[in-house]
Amino acid sequence: MSFQHKHVLGIEQMTKEDIQIILDTADSFKEINSREIKKVPTLRGKTIINAFFEASTRTRLSFEIAGKRLSADTVNISGSTSSVVKGETLEDTAKNIEAMAPDIIVIRHGHSGAPHYLSERVGCSVVNAGDGAHEHPSQALLDLMTMREHKGSIDGLEVAIVGDITHSRVARSDIYALTRMGAKVRLCGPGTMMPIGIELLGNVEVFTDIREAIEGADVVMMLRIQMERQSNILLPSLREYARFYGLNPTNLKLAKPDAIVMHPGPMNRGVEISSAVADGGQNVILDQVENGVATRMALLYLVSGVESMQTND
Amino acid sequence: MSFQHKHVLGIEQMTKEDIQIILDTADSFKEINSREIKKVPTLRGKTIINAFFEASTRTRLSFEIAGKRLSADTVNISGSTSSVVKGETLEDTAKNIEAMAPDIIVIRHGHSGAPHYLSERVGCSVVNAGDGAHEHPSQALLDLMTMREHKGSIDGLEVAIVGDITHSRVARSDIYALTRMGAKVRLCGPGTMMPIGIELLGNVEVFTDIREAIEGADVVMMLRIQMERQSNILLPSLREYARFYGLNPTNLKLAKPDAIVMHPGPMNRGVEISSAVADGGQNVILDQVENGVATRMALLYLVSGVESMQTND
Amino acid sequence: MSFQHKHVLGIEQMTKEDIQIILDTADSFKEINSREIKKVPTLRGKTIINAFFEASTRTRLSFEIAGKRLSADTVNISGSTSSVVKGETLEDTAKNIEAMAPDIIVIRHGHSGAPHYLSERVGCSVVNAGDGAHEHPSQALLDLMTMREHKGSIDGLEVAIVGDITHSRVARSDIYALTRMGAKVRLCGPGTMMPIGIELLGNVEVFTDIREAIEGADVVMMLRIQMERQSNILLPSLREYARFYGLNPTNLKLAKPDAIVMHPGPMNRGVEISSAVADGGQNVILDQVENGVATRMALLYLVSGVESMQTND
Repeated sequence: MSFQHKHVLGIEQMTKEDIQIILDTADSFKEINSREIKKVPTLRGKTIINAFFEASTRTRLSFEIAGKRLSADTVNISGSTSSVVKGETLEDTAKNIEAMAPDIIVIRHGHSGAPHYLSERVGCSVVNAGDGAHEHPSQALLDLMTMREHKGSIDGLEVAIVGDITHSRVARSDIYALTRMGAKVRLCGPGTMMPIGIELLGNVEVFTDIREAIEGADVVMMLRIQMERQSNILLPSLREYARFYGLNPTNLKLAKPDAIVMHPGPMNRGVEISSAVADGGQNVILDQVENGVATRMALLYLVSGVESMQTND
Repeated sequence: MSFQHKHVLGIEQMTKEDIQIILDTADSFKEINSREIKKVPTLRGKTIINAFFEASTRTRLSFEIAGKRLSADTVNISGSTSSVVKGETLEDTAKNIEAMAPDIIVIRHGHSGAPHYLSERVGCSVVNAGDGAHEHPSQALLDLMTMREHKGSIDGLEVAIVGDITHSRVARSDIYALTRMGAKVRLCGPGTMMPIGIELLGNVEVFTDIREAIEGADVVMMLRIQMERQSNILLPSLREYARFYGLNPTNLKLAKPDAIVMHPGPMNRGVEISSAVADGGQNVILDQVENGVATRMALLYLVSGVESMQTND
Repeated sequence: MSFQHKHVLGIEQMTKEDIQIILDTADSFKEINSREIKKVPTLRGKTIINAFFEASTRTRLSFEIAGKRLSADTVNISGSTSSVVKGETLEDTAKNIEAMAPDIIVIRHGHSGAPHYLSERVGCSVVNAGDGAHEHPSQALLDLMTMREHKGSIDGLEVAIVGDITHSRVARSDIYALTRMGAKVRLCGPGTMMPIGIELLGNVEVFTDIREAIEGADVVMMLRIQMERQSNILLPSLREYARFYGLNPTNLKLAKPDAIVMHPGPMNRGVEISSAVADGGQNVILDQVENGVATRMALLYLVSGVESMQTND
């Protein structure tokens, strides 16, 4: 059983085995991050280009740290300084980057499908770090890694995902990953934020009442309300949203007593999640971030085709 | 005698011994910067995050070069690309960064006290690279290193600091450091730029006439007028300021013949300092910059808790 | 025969021998970029500062990757975050950077002559990565490397350069390099884009009709129309420009059958070059980008004064 993919474009294309290999590899890499010397020679002499055409702190940071801890050379491109502003096509930008012989391009892009488009046109590996409202596979994988750590297994878990499901690449990738691994997914949000027909996917149930969605859940995952993008069309007001769709100590009691609370960050405290919950004993939000580095180390290693993890210094 | 601090938040908390250890360590590291191979393995496998939430070239560059010459992995965050714009709290941003297991966060932030606030909430070391109008400890330390190089000792020096004392984190850190090390500090600036009651600190004298402040001084330190921030409330005009508070060859003659001239940069030539002085034989301004790298190497090394400096390649 | 220059400021000052050494060195380095481990220890412990005061993706990326593959420590400064905005002079900025003991400053600057000005004021090496409308030496050198690869020799080649010759630092550097190496240069563009008296340089001919310029050429180099900078003074319209000065499969037939097509990028497809040509079998545009990394490795190595290339890992 081995990982046969050159690219990580999305969870949709992954098999259960693919996901298991990634999670197991991430588990192996995790320990490196708590060593005195947080560095292994696995990807020495490899070049990783982090091309973030959309603003990002934590995902870029996570990928950059992952690459450096594997001893790769990492180089950053951000949207504002890129040739994109000069009217070059994405394909030309990509082919130019490729001509500099990187081993992996990690790409975040505002357009859904941009990483897939690239992967068909360049010879190096492409890792999707978030494309439009489409997929965010490394986020879903770190979410599963975190659930598995806390719950032992994904299979059979009841996972509630609450928020703007339609526009969330996190939700989309998580739905694919969770259902593939045998979890049951409960989606909850205002009708304006729920994709039509989503319940036709197996193992997905739709709720408009957060209390019903949470009841008996093993995992409650709150999505970020993208306040900077919201107009008043989808939401009457943030106050209304917090009241009807925010997670607070009261409605969290409806979940299983040992339920964990997740959030992809950055959090809007007082909107989708109350501070009491965000800081409460059930939250595993920082575990998600920690596991993010290990997950990205695993992805960079697996697509690189390097034979040995070389987890010794 | 050893350095017992996990963080470098400000000079105010430092003892005389602390400052001496830092200056001595910086002296030891300085020589590395003139080698053919400017790199020692001291912090190999350590991750340093340079989080500059305020624009900076020289301080960020100095810390980044210091980290790289110690073989650390360095990663940058700048304000414009950070999640701060997405409305996340500083604490959440910090905890997220911390979850990626950095060893040191170097932080510059517009709010006074931000590094202190962080240091109480994260497990890694925090180094203050300038917080609001509060402190800029690495600047004061490189200033002292430079004075010690040129004057042999800080003890007993007469140091004039001229400019906007109230809003200068450089002045504040230098006042703490200089008085602790036995220097006498003369502060000079327009009344609107002088903190009320500052003379109540021991070994500090206040002047409004630059000639009196400079007379017989061993060191004349000119502060930058932050032209981009000035309204007409504090200053009648730059021309008036230059005339009454600028350093020029004429008033510099009032200082001791071997007095040195310092400036934290970037300089406004023709405002707080004339070009004749900025380029003259008494200026040690570039020594300050050079010593900045050595000072920051010392700080990164000392907070890291690594046992040996490993100054061999 | 060895490279005697501390700086790379422009092609104008270079001898034929200088150019040959650079091209030969670049040839030697090229192979490293296709290895499994793309890294040699040549510049270990050297600090390279990439100071890009003008926006750039590909040139900065190419220099940064070149530096990292030679094991140098690379640090970036970009215009928007630099002290330049605080009103510091370029000389002061440079002297400050120099005081941090870099070995090489790679500089892109909007003002012609900025790298030359710097090189007279700092002790480290300066490499010009493009200065105003003046020179872009590394681009010309990678162009020649690419021509030599495809044509065996530069001597005797007929090279057509089409576009805004007056404002192109690429054209200027290429004209110097090509004529020095024995090529014949044909310049073509609207009269408003042609420097007066350019034909007085030896081996340069001026055309206003692209068909005459291309006829029998070995190399057709199309320049980018800087749409973001054009007013309607130089160009009646992009459509007119494409019609009269754009390269398309029809007028390309006038060149030699084995002629190669070059472009410094980023391309404006449909303006100076049609997509059919940009993607056609005669284009060597991505070879140029690939050779760019090798050329910059050669330049960084040659100015560093390091004795051995150490092309073994």
